[in-house]
Amino acid sequence: MDPHRLQQQITFILEIDKLKSVLRQTYITIDERHENSAEHSWHLATMALILIDHADEKIDLCHVLRLLLVHDIIEIDAGDTYCYDELETKDQSVREHQAAERIFSLLPEDQANTMCDLWLEFESRNTPEAKFAVALDCLMPLLHNLHTEGKSWQEHNITMDQVITRNRAISDGSAQLWQFAQSIIKQAVTTGYLTAPDGSVSEDMK
Amino acid sequence: MDPHRLQQQITFILEIDKLKSVLRQTYITIDERHENSAEHSWHLATMALILIDHADEKIDLCHVLRLLLVHDIIEIDAGDTYCYDELETKDQSVREHQAAERIFSLLPEDQANTMCDLWLEFESRNTPEAKFAVALDCLMPLLHNLHTEGKSWQEHNITMDQVITRNRAISDGSAQLWQFAQSIIKQAVTTGYLTAPDGSVSEDMK
Repeated sequence: MDPHRLQQQITFILEIDKLKSVLRQTYITIDERHENSAEHSWHLATMALILIDHADEKIDLCHVLRLLLVHDIIEIDAGDTYCYDELETKDQSVREHQAAERIFSLLPEDQANTMCDLWLEFESRNTPEAKFAVALDCLMPLLHNLHTEGKSWQEHNITMDQVITRNRAISDGSAQLWQFAQSIIKQAVTTGYLTAPDGSVSEDMK
Repeated sequence: MDPHRLQQQITFILEIDKLKSVLRQTYITIDERHENSAEHSWHLATMALILIDHADEKIDLCHVLRLLLVHDIIEIDAGDTYCYDELETKDQSVREHQAAERIFSLLPEDQANTMCDLWLEFESRNTPEAKFAVALDCLMPLLHNLHTEGKSWQEHNITMDQVITRNRAISDGSAQLWQFAQSIIKQAVTTGYLTAPDGSVSEDMK
């Protein structure tokens, strides 16, 4: 065992404990509190175990799990950027690259590079595994909103069209899950958790 | 797509949101709050990505990840049983088997069986992957205690000998990590976060 290598690994493992204090806009379905990014990452990875067969392409489960476990670590420095906040998303990329540089470089160089590559792959959405991982990352907040009376959507006056635009990425990873996501959005409009800008159902959803 | 199958899967995915409200005895290193079992599971799985090379045997990372993502789900019904609580651990097995039966059977039968098998494998500690997963599950609270001034140990008057007995399982998965764990325990005794029953260092730790 190289004690310096192990010490770097342990430093990183302790550093990422902070992800448990990064709050997202979504609410968990009980307890009326915001979800944090660490428990969200666990939920997505476990969701991947269950929904893997709905991926459009034959994909490597282990790789999807690695992408999902790592994808939000940069939020320790960069914070969780609400996907519907145009102001926040403007400098998101700069903030997140700086965060990746600092946090992943706590690791031994080979592992720092691997972790950074996983994060960049998730962000680029260029591989079948990344597309499926992103699909799950989009689908989960739809489920959470549907089961918390659209709480985070309503707090930010999010419209159905915004939700459709944001979540169309689900269709890049899984046609089946995009079909399901559309049914959730329809249901959210019907129950009044989500409104169309003019009060009617969007062309996309007819 | 079989809509009934997908509906069962989504029901399960929503059900396990409750793991975010199951509190463990350990504290996270910032915010002075108890850790919950969902964020703990994420932390362990991510730790596995980093520490896999310290396993004694050549093991399948994906399998370790699956074990760690699933290992605490039964706590939704059974609660987190504090490993040093002799009274609670008495009926732990019965409570946890009942929980596994209810929660996993929300899934389609094939996936229910797979999830139950993963949980049983983790509990049995019979495979190289389960041994390594258990090693990480033991090591993490040592790290948390060392970095929260032994908070949960001190709240429950845990002694060094109890910690050694409980965590010797680390050596079944990784001799290197057991060596490291022993150095943590020594450090915890030195700093006064953990006491030997007679105030001296145990034979095991000399």
